Amino acid sequence: MKEERNKELLERAGKVIPNGVYGHMSVGNQSPRTPQFYARAKGAYLWDYDGQRYIDYMCAFGPQLFGYGHEEIDAAFINQLREVDIATAPSARMVELAEAYAKQITHCDWSMFCKNGTDATSMALMVARHYRQKRKVLIASGAYHGATTWCSPVAHGTLPEDRAHFIHYEYNNAESLRAAVAEAGDDLAAIFATPHKHDIIATQEPPDLDYARAARAACDEHDALLILDDVRGGFRIARDCSWQAIDVAPDLSTWGKALANGHALSCLMGSDKAKAAASEIFVTGSFWMAAAPMAAALKTLELIQSTDYLEHTIAMGQALRNGLEGIAKETGLAISQSGPAQMPLIMINKEDGRRDMKLSLAFADQLLEHGILFHPYHNMFFSNAISDSDIDQTLSACQKVAGAMGQ
Amino acid sequence: MKEERNKELLERAGKVIPNGVYGHMSVGNQSPRTPQFYARAKGAYLWDYDGQRYIDYMCAFGPQLFGYGHEEIDAAFINQLREVDIATAPSARMVELAEAYAKQITHCDWSMFCKNGTDATSMALMVARHYRQKRKVLIASGAYHGATTWCSPVAHGTLPEDRAHFIHYEYNNAESLRAAVAEAGDDLAAIFATPHKHDIIATQEPPDLDYARAARAACDEHDALLILDDVRGGFRIARDCSWQAIDVAPDLSTWGKALANGHALSCLMGSDKAKAAASEIFVTGSFWMAAAPMAAALKTLELIQSTDYLEHTIAMGQALRNGLEGIAKETGLAISQSGPAQMPLIMINKEDGRRDMKLSLAFADQLLEHGILFHPYHNMFFSNAISDSDIDQTLSACQKVAGAMGQ
Repeated sequence: MKEERNKELLERAGKVIPNGVYGHMSVGNQSPRTPQFYARAKGAYLWDYDGQRYIDYMCAFGPQLFGYGHEEIDAAFINQLREVDIATAPSARMVELAEAYAKQITHCDWSMFCKNGTDATSMALMVARHYRQKRKVLIASGAYHGATTWCSPVAHGTLPEDRAHFIHYEYNNAESLRAAVAEAGDDLAAIFATPHKHDIIATQEPPDLDYARAARAACDEHDALLILDDVRGGFRIARDCSWQAIDVAPDLSTWGKALANGHALSCLMGSDKAKAAASEIFVTGSFWMAAAPMAAALKTLELIQSTDYLEHTIAMGQALRNGLEGIAKETGLAISQSGPAQMPLIMINKEDGRRDMKLSLAFADQLLEHGILFHPYHNMFFSNAISDSDIDQTLSACQKVAGAMGQ
Repeated sequence: MKEERNKELLERAGKVIPNGVYGHMSVGNQSPRTPQFYARAKGAYLWDYDGQRYIDYMCAFGPQLFGYGHEEIDAAFINQLREVDIATAPSARMVELAEAYAKQITHCDWSMFCKNGTDATSMALMVARHYRQKRKVLIASGAYHGATTWCSPVAHGTLPEDRAHFIHYEYNNAESLRAAVAEAGDDLAAIFATPHKHDIIATQEPPDLDYARAARAACDEHDALLILDDVRGGFRIARDCSWQAIDVAPDLSTWGKALANGHALSCLMGSDKAKAAASEIFVTGSFWMAAAPMAAALKTLELIQSTDYLEHTIAMGQALRNGLEGIAKETGLAISQSGPAQMPLIMINKEDGRRDMKLSLAFADQLLEHGILFHPYHNMFFSNAISDSDIDQTLSACQKVAGAMGQ
């Protein structure tokens, strides 16, 4: 593998950007030869600056649902850009998109568009606290809901006051949730939940039905709002809000990532119950009402409705999962797989069943040589562009790497 | 004026979006026939859905610096989109842009890119508090620094705790600033300042040199960080940070709006002094590292360096200002003008010199009939696309409207 240009870019970056690259896209905790920059993207593939092609299983950490550089979606974006994108007021695309989501998403009566997932979760927090003038908000320990003062997983630069009135509970633990609800007393504003447990490094878990129903019941009992944070899972689990699959309707849901297949758009959706509160908070952003990402989102939604992308990504994810199970048995390498097949966390365990971070990093590192891009400790994402032959190639590479490592 | 389609869109919007349109782009407080949606944008012009063309003096509230649908900038964006936009890691464009800003902006050694102005100000807040583990942050009363829990101008949905440890001072009042510094004691983390006073409705003021120097001196004395919030003014006042013109260097500056001529990009810039702190906070966003807006920003910066856009927008602003002064004298209408000529606030005063909101709304309303888009109470923005003939047409319309109103 050549890595010269990547290294050169990283050296230049370090001089003019804190940490070279910051946030979730920094590969600083991964093996040194993990590409930190990409020169080209198309379909299921990324190319680094040294000419190596990778089958990408990260989809830009979620935004890619139909593959990079999707012709139809990008054409919708570019055509809209040529008419009007950002102006002194929005375009009709905003109305059309809000109408489309109100039709598509069972619990959704209204939408507020924004740019970052954190914008949507921050808006949800504000709507919920304004709804009945309550303060306490329940959040699962270890869950990720964004990266600003009140929610960044690293507290540096934040104050204890920024996180006042949050109560933590254990995801999927109805008893722990009920204890948190009791602690909130008559001051409960909201319960945040991810659609399934997708915390970094931790074993991913599907939502426990008792837990999800307990969250709904507690919100009903206390006239609080149930917030489903579907930024990561949205449209990857269902063609609806992710908890529609278990028939638990939130009052608010937060979306981002895949909405416009990589174009910058996020959204807070809500039910009519929360509309008055939503109309009284003041939130805004310079580019929130840009039309081109909304045109791309309308086209993405059309494809969500008209293609078998969901069945295909699940099938591809399952094929990888099945293949890796076989490889684990054959080679003796303790490959741990959890999460929905199309959003898997794949790590290597120690003999005692705990995570082996060193082996997990080594596994991803070795796969790079074969042109396979896995993340060593974050859940991955399948796009509709992944094909059978990509899976075959990936499994063949995994076989070789696991064979060598499992010795 | 036909308004049928605009009204129809607004009615549809009200059903699926809180307030129909929320945030700064809502025209809910303006006259009923103010367009709430635009179908097309090109150069200095916007077209509503009923076919009326407007000379636009809002530039999408700042993002448009070189005019809507700028061929070269949009071509740079689209070409980059076709190579790679958002991927599993950034592209080389991010490094190039950070290098370019470090060269262009005197105080800037490093950049962190994001999407909203609020992202940049929130990051600045976190960097400043982490820098020396101090808490108190000084903010001018009435200044706008974004719209989330800690800074939204409407407190609905926020808690007193979200705004703990902020101390307010009067902009341009060195004495008031020093009193706030004294109140912060040895817990001073930062002083926020806008480049000039550009609060909504209030008379805009250039920065007082004593005040700006007092802010710099206080930060030096207390080892705190001076944050210039240049989201609105950036590249509209100078080809550098806006306070470069008065030779006061901030430690951090926040940018957004015009950086990429309307493509979604914002940025926190900093000096090396603050780099270690910036590298230890955790902030991120799904689309922050998308390459296409950065390619557009590189092209925008090229035009900033190579054209006379700054002199042109100032000259056009001054021509409008001079013309309006004459019209005010001639018609007796108390047209109040303040702020930099290229970022003017234009309102109508009462006889006692206070704002007349009713007349200000009526003035903007009447101009709509002539195809002129003024904002009745927010500062406006000139793009490089505004021409002499646009100014002539605007002044001719203002003459008629003021003539009728001034009777």
